[in-house]
Amino acid sequence: MSPLLEELAAIVGPAHVLTAPELVAGQVTDWTGYWTGHTTAVVRPADTAQVAAVLAACHRAGQPVVPQGGNTGLVGGSIPLEGELVLSTLRLNRIEQVDPLGRTLAAGAGVTVAAAQQAAAEHGLLLGTDLASRDSATLGGIVATNAGGVAMVKYGSTRSRVLGVEAALADGRVLTRWIPLVKDNIGYDLPGLLTGSEGTLAVITRVLLRLVVPARHTATVLAGVDSVVTALALRDAVNRAGLTLEAAELLTAAGLDLVCTRQGLRHPFSEPTPYAVLMEVSGPAEVAEILAEALTSVDGLADAALEEGHSARLWHYRESHTETIAASSSTPAVKLDVAVPLGHQEEFLGRLGPLLGERFPTARPICFGHFADGNIHVNVLDVSADERDAVSDAVFTLVRRYGGSISAEHGIGRAKNRWIGLGRSPADRAAMAAIRTALDPAGLLNPAVLRFDTDR
Amino acid sequence: MSPLLEELAAIVGPAHVLTAPELVAGQVTDWTGYWTGHTTAVVRPADTAQVAAVLAACHRAGQPVVPQGGNTGLVGGSIPLEGELVLSTLRLNRIEQVDPLGRTLAAGAGVTVAAAQQAAAEHGLLLGTDLASRDSATLGGIVATNAGGVAMVKYGSTRSRVLGVEAALADGRVLTRWIPLVKDNIGYDLPGLLTGSEGTLAVITRVLLRLVVPARHTATVLAGVDSVVTALALRDAVNRAGLTLEAAELLTAAGLDLVCTRQGLRHPFSEPTPYAVLMEVSGPAEVAEILAEALTSVDGLADAALEEGHSARLWHYRESHTETIAASSSTPAVKLDVAVPLGHQEEFLGRLGPLLGERFPTARPICFGHFADGNIHVNVLDVSADERDAVSDAVFTLVRRYGGSISAEHGIGRAKNRWIGLGRSPADRAAMAAIRTALDPAGLLNPAVLRFDTDR
Ligand SMILES: Cc1cc2nc3c(=O)[nH]c(=O)nc-3n(C[C@H](O)[C@H](O)[C@H](O)COP(=O)(O)OP(=O)(O)OC[C@H]3O[C@@H](n4cnc5c(N)ncnc54)[C@H](O)[C@@H]3O)c2cc1C
Ligand SMILES: Cc1cc2nc3c(=O)[nH]c(=O)nc-3n(C[C@H](O)[C@H](O)[C@H](O)COP(=O)(O)OP(=O)(O)OC[C@H]3O[C@@H](n4cnc5c(N)ncnc54)[C@H](O)[C@@H]3O)c2cc1C
Repeated sequence: MSPLLEELAAIVGPAHVLTAPELVAGQVTDWTGYWTGHTTAVVRPADTAQVAAVLAACHRAGQPVVPQGGNTGLVGGSIPLEGELVLSTLRLNRIEQVDPLGRTLAAGAGVTVAAAQQAAAEHGLLLGTDLASRDSATLGGIVATNAGGVAMVKYGSTRSRVLGVEAALADGRVLTRWIPLVKDNIGYDLPGLLTGSEGTLAVITRVLLRLVVPARHTATVLAGVDSVVTALALRDAVNRAGLTLEAAELLTAAGLDLVCTRQGLRHPFSEPTPYAVLMEVSGPAEVAEILAEALTSVDGLADAALEEGHSARLWHYRESHTETIAASSSTPAVKLDVAVPLGHQEEFLGRLGPLLGERFPTARPICFGHFADGNIHVNVLDVSADERDAVSDAVFTLVRRYGGSISAEHGIGRAKNRWIGLGRSPADRAAMAAIRTALDPAGLLNPAVLRFDTDR
Repeated sequence: MSPLLEELAAIVGPAHVLTAPELVAGQVTDWTGYWTGHTTAVVRPADTAQVAAVLAACHRAGQPVVPQGGNTGLVGGSIPLEGELVLSTLRLNRIEQVDPLGRTLAAGAGVTVAAAQQAAAEHGLLLGTDLASRDSATLGGIVATNAGGVAMVKYGSTRSRVLGVEAALADGRVLTRWIPLVKDNIGYDLPGLLTGSEGTLAVITRVLLRLVVPARHTATVLAGVDSVVTALALRDAVNRAGLTLEAAELLTAAGLDLVCTRQGLRHPFSEPTPYAVLMEVSGPAEVAEILAEALTSVDGLADAALEEGHSARLWHYRESHTETIAASSSTPAVKLDVAVPLGHQEEFLGRLGPLLGERFPTARPICFGHFADGNIHVNVLDVSADERDAVSDAVFTLVRRYGGSISAEHGIGRAKNRWIGLGRSPADRAAMAAIRTALDPAGLLNPAVLRFDTDR
C-alpha cells in the first residue's frame, strides 16, 4: 500500500479503501457500459469530517479525485478514466430530518433519491425530483448534476430547491451553508454554484432541500395536435383555467406510430396528427371537468382522451418510447438531451429529419420531450458506429442555430467536453475556469470533467 | 478634466460624464437619505460596448466603480461613499423583446420594473417580481440584489427567474449567457451567481427573464389565528384544496391594533387573537367557494373575512403598516428584514419583545411578514439614535439563535457588513472572497460592499 492509501485507511478504516479489481468493478464502469476506467482506490468515508480528511490527504499528495454517488450519470462524469481516486459518498446515507412545517429535508449526500422520496412521503410531501434512476441516484448526485426530469415543469430545477449544502473543498476545508429558508440574501449563491458543478468545485456531503406538496386531484389528457404552437396553446388554456401543469410531454407521429406497432397498442386517435401532447394537470376536486372545458377553447386539437387522476394507460404511450426505441434500432441509438427555445421547437423538429437524411441515409430520428421546458430527447436510430459523433455534431449544430442548449439535463461530464464551445462563449468559459481555479487551485477535483479550455 | 474622465467622455459622450455637484446630487444620496457620498463622476453609457469600454478604462486607471440602477436599494450599496465613480445603467433602457410563447423578456439592465411589468402585461403576462419601488428600481437592480417581495411565495426568487444575463467584468470583458431556457446544464450557473452579487462581480447590462402567467381568479381572506402554527395549517389547507397561494402575510395583534387605531379602521375580528393572516389565493372560477370550504378544516381559526378577487379593503390592514409605523414612532423606526425558519417564527416573535424590553425600555417592536417564506419585517419604534446599532445587534443575534437569516431580501450592501459573520461562516466567506478575486482581481467593483473580511 502506498503511503497515501495507508493514510486514507487510517481515516476511513481499511475496510473502506478498496483496491481489488473485483471490488471496484462497479465503480469504474458507468451505467451505460460505455465508459470504463481504472482507479488508485475507491474510498468510502462515513461523514463530512472523513470526507474532508480524505480530500486534505489527497491534496497534500497531489492525487486527483473523482466524486461518485450512485454512478447513474449519463455523461461519464463519475468514472476514473485516468486512474483517479474515487471518493464514494454511499456511506453518507443518513436522513437527518424532515421538517413538515418548513417543508425541508436534511440528509447525507449519499442518500438515494428513492429513500429521500420515501422519507418525504411519510410526511405527505414530495422530493420534487423524480427520475428512473431513483433507486441508485443520490441526493449529492442530483445536486451535482442539477438533475431535471418530468416534474420540473411544476417544481422547477433541482437548483431551485437546494436551500443549503455542506461541502468539502479540494483542500479539505468545509463549507457550510445551512439556512432552511428561500430568503437569505447574504453574498453569493454558493449552493446554486455547486449545483450542477459535476464534482469539480467541491464534494457535497450533506444537503438541505425544499420539499413540495403533492397534488391531490389530477387528470391526464392525451391529445392529437396539428403543431407545437397548438401544444403551447393547450398549456396556456390550462393556466388560464386556474389549473397547474404537472407534466407536459410532446410526442411525434413517428414515435407514436412506432410505439403502437411495437407494443400492440391501439392508436389513440381516429385520424393521424403530426404531434400528440400528453399532459397531467392538477387542481381542485373538479379538475377533470375544468380541464375538459378548457380543451374546448383550443383550436387545432384533434381527438383528446381524458381520464381522471394519473392515467397509467395514457402515460404508457409516452413511457414505452425508451424501450421501443432500444428494440427498434439496429445499432445503439444515439441519445441526445437538448433544449430548444419554445418558439423554435417546431422548426427544429421539422428540419432535423431532412438534415440527418441528407448525410446519414439510414438514420431515423425519433424525438419526444418535455415541451413546456423546451427539452427534447433526440434519439437517432440505425446509426453506424463511425457515424455517431458526426450525428451528434449535426444535431448540436442545429440546436445552436435555434439558440438552444446542447445539454438540457445530463451535463457535460466527459462525453460532451468537445462540444462545450457550442454551449458557452470563450469569455464565459474563462470566467468558469477562473472560479474553478479559485476554489481548487491545484486542479484535483474531477479534472477531466467540464474542460473549459476545449477549443473548436 | 482628468485623463480618465476625458477618455470616458470620448466613450459615452461628454454629456454623459457628470461631475457638477448639482447634477450628481441624486446619485450620491440614497433613497432613505441615510447614506451620502461624493463621486469622481457619474458616467452613463448607452449600451454594453460602452459599459465594457468604461470599465476597461477604469481598470487601466485603477479607478473603483459603483454600479447604480434606480438607486432604491436599502443598504447603501449604490452610493459612492469613498468617492468611487458611479456607473449608471439608466440609459440601458431598451425593452428588446417579449416572447409570449417562451414567456421571456429580454431587456436592458436600466429598464425599470414598472416598464418591464407594462411590457409583460401587453402580452397578458407578469414579471413575477413586484415591489413598491417599481417606478425607479431597475431590472439590473432587482437581479443584482435578488429582490424579493410579496409575490415570491408564488413565483420564487428573482434568481429563479433569471435565464440569462449579459454583463461586463471589471476589466471590460463581456460575459454573455443568453439561452432562453430553464434547462441548460453546461457548467456553472453564472447568471445565478451574479444574481444577488450587489454589483461586486460584474456590471449587468442586459437581462433575459422568465415571465409568469397571472392568476385569473383569486380570493382574499383575513383571518384571526391563535398561533403561527395555525397560519401554516391554513397554508396547508389551501394547498390540499388544489389552490395556489398568491400571498401569505402574517400580522400581529400589536400591529393590527395600531393600524386600526391610527387609520380609524374597524377592527376586523369580534375577538382579539395574537396573530392574523392575510392570504390571497388563486384557482379556478370557483376559488372563493373552495377556499371557504378549506377554511372549515382548520382548527384554531377565529373570525375570517373572505372576499372574491384581490380585496383592497382587506389588504389595507396589511399595507397601511409601513405608513402607520412611520407615523407612530418618536424616532425613525429601526427596520430590519430578517427570516426565521418556519417552525421557529412563533418562538422568535414571542421572545423578541421581552428581550428588547429588558435592554431598551422604550423600544416597541412591531413585526409583520411573508410567513410562508419565513420572512419577518421587524420594526422597532421609539429607539434613540445611540441605541440603533445595539437594537439591530440584539435582533440579529436572536435571528441566528433560531438559525435564521439576517438579510432576507435587501442584501448586505454597506449597512450590514459588520454583521456578515452572523450570516456566513469563515470558510464560506473565504470561498466568496476567492470567487470575487477570480472575477475582479484588482478589487475595483463596489469594493466597500459585501466585505467578506469583517471579523466579529
Ligand atoms: C435510467 C436513468 C434515468 C435517468 N433519468 C434522468 C432524468 O430524467 N433527468 C436527469 O437529469 N438525469 C437522469 N439520469 C441521469 C442520472 O441519474 C442523474 O444525473 C443523477 O443525478 C446522477 O446521480 P448519481 O448519484 O448517480 O451521480 P453519479 O453518477 O455518481 O455522478 C454524477 C456526477 O456528479 C458528481 N457527483 C456525484 N455525487 C457528488 C457529490 N456528493 N459531490 C460532488 N459531486 C458529486 C460526479 O462526480 C459526476 O460528475 C438518468 C439516469 C439513468 C441511468
Ligand atoms: C419603497 C421601497 C420598497 C422596496 N421594496 C422591496 C421589496 O419588497 N423587496 C426587495 O427585495 N427590495 C425592496 N426594496 C429595495 C430595492 O428597491 C431593491 O433592492 C431594488 O432591487 C434595487 O434596484 P435599483 O435599480 O434601485 O438598484 P440600486 O439601488 O441602484 O442598486 C442596488 C445594488 O445593486 C447594484 N446594481 C444595480 N444595478 C446593477 C447592475 N446593472 N449591475 C450590477 N450591479 C448593479 C448596486 O451596485 C447596488 O449594490 C424597496 C425599496 C424601496 C425604496
